[in-house]
Amino acid sequence: MRIALDAMGGDRAPREQIRGALLAVREFEDLEVSLVGVAEVIEPELRLAGSHPRISVVPAGPAIAMEVAMTMLHNANADAVVSAGNTGAVMASAFFYVGRIRGIERPALALVLPYNAGRVLLIDVGANTDCRPSHLMQFAQMGSAYSEKVIGVRNPRVGLLNVGEEAGKGNELAAEAHERIKECGVNFIGNVEGTEVHKGIADVVVTDGFTGNIALKVGEGIADYLLLTLKGVIKSSPLFIGAALLLKPALKRALQRLQYEEYGGANLLGVNGVVVIAHGRSDAIAIKNALKVARQAAKSGLIETMRQSFARATEATQAAGT
Amino acid sequence: MRIALDAMGGDRAPREQIRGALLAVREFEDLEVSLVGVAEVIEPELRLAGSHPRISVVPAGPAIAMEVAMTMLHNANADAVVSAGNTGAVMASAFFYVGRIRGIERPALALVLPYNAGRVLLIDVGANTDCRPSHLMQFAQMGSAYSEKVIGVRNPRVGLLNVGEEAGKGNELAAEAHERIKECGVNFIGNVEGTEVHKGIADVVVTDGFTGNIALKVGEGIADYLLLTLKGVIKSSPLFIGAALLLKPALKRALQRLQYEEYGGANLLGVNGVVVIAHGRSDAIAIKNALKVARQAAKSGLIETMRQSFARATEATQAAGT
Repeated sequence: MRIALDAMGGDRAPREQIRGALLAVREFEDLEVSLVGVAEVIEPELRLAGSHPRISVVPAGPAIAMEVAMTMLHNANADAVVSAGNTGAVMASAFFYVGRIRGIERPALALVLPYNAGRVLLIDVGANTDCRPSHLMQFAQMGSAYSEKVIGVRNPRVGLLNVGEEAGKGNELAAEAHERIKECGVNFIGNVEGTEVHKGIADVVVTDGFTGNIALKVGEGIADYLLLTLKGVIKSSPLFIGAALLLKPALKRALQRLQYEEYGGANLLGVNGVVVIAHGRSDAIAIKNALKVARQAAKSGLIETMRQSFARATEATQAAGT
Repeated sequence: MRIALDAMGGDRAPREQIRGALLAVREFEDLEVSLVGVAEVIEPELRLAGSHPRISVVPAGPAIAMEVAMTMLHNANADAVVSAGNTGAVMASAFFYVGRIRGIERPALALVLPYNAGRVLLIDVGANTDCRPSHLMQFAQMGSAYSEKVIGVRNPRVGLLNVGEEAGKGNELAAEAHERIKECGVNFIGNVEGTEVHKGIADVVVTDGFTGNIALKVGEGIADYLLLTLKGVIKSSPLFIGAALLLKPALKRALQRLQYEEYGGANLLGVNGVVVIAHGRSDAIAIKNALKVARQAAKSGLIETMRQSFARATEATQAAGT
């Protein structure tokens, strides 16, 4: 199992990328990581951080590290790609060098949110700002395949993010997508409201990339806001400070599940290989978790399953059309 | 100052409506509340809760309380209406009995979010699921007028909820709305991402009713989730329980700002009178806060200001068209 890691992409590259790779190979014995990027920059940093027999360096100019990593995936010299580079640039480079799975109209970004009630896959969190109902239908199918193959959920419950529970609710896109998803072969449980996402009533929550991105970032903002507010309140009294010190590990545990470092990056589903996009601000822990997510997807056989099922769907459509 | 309160609308009506009205008239000496609904149900409850000279009962059948309240507003027998009834039904009844301000294409729901950094008006939180760029432009104008007249912000900063900071980002609607808002006479600061809403960088955040509703409810869900998670973690150790007891007032203060009871209801901006829609689950405190919001808007002269400015804009458009 080899993952090509774009060592140049992200606000804190290459240092945190290198440290994250080291954490990952120490945690997973079957994992090899190729650090793709400027060798003159990576190698001294790697020596400082402590090199490892399962970490190698693949030289590439700073502007083309992402492309080199994608080409490795395309040529089967890597089983997955991880990048914390600009999301739009990673997607464009994946489309160009890796290509789409036949039958997929639009690849989408899927993020696993680790709530107490279970892991919820939100798809699309930002790849497609304008969608048609057929796109959302395919997001439902891809999300369901991921939940089943990678997370291990049997017969995943798929919900549509919407402003009300009843069919027909929402904007035109959501109302039409509801009808399409109902008929597309996934275990559709209907609409899911914003207040319900974290409750684990659906294993997969489908939405367009505009709404999904706003939902994700508002959630992130509210979690940050609460943490900051809490800190401010605690500092207002010495009694509170004492209590907070005792409570700190508990507070930390409660909040860390909502922080991007723990998510491990979003899967770009629908391209012809495993591509994971980590947050631009990723630190070593976030990179390690992104490598973990990529490793799970690559091990699961998800891509082969999706290739087969979308090829069948495409053939059925073509047969019906003739 | 008289507010007509729909005493029959909401999950906990009429009891919490009556108790909320009592709290409000005790807090505001200039306030009279007309409880609109079934007299036989309201009067005994009111006697139990403690009647008040500035609270009266306006009899109306259970199915028409909302309509009677709207008619009072239309006939200037009330300065504002508050209802915790079904949002769609309240809006339909306001459109029919109160009507739109001339020049407004689509009334919108505006909610004041009381963050530490300042009060942020989010518009639209659910009235219009499908919008055109011109609608979002008018939301910007109405939101700006509200922020200035009711909240007292000078030259309010208006932002557009979007997935990136640069103009041109987002779905077609957001990209086009950006251009329209830039030219419409408000103090436009550009796009605001989901992570930024609570930071108070904009006094008014504009979005379509689908995205706004999802954003609001995801925020509500995440706050609930954090509170529950925290409670669970605290219970896991006696040491934590002790610390948490000390910290409870601080925790409560931090969280209550994110709870709907404190918001006081959403303003239906663009109809020809002050209409405030409270959360269906409203308790007495939430109803009191909704009455407070309605009182502020009615006192501010907002409706008259909006009538004049949209009439001028309509005349200018018509003059340009001839």
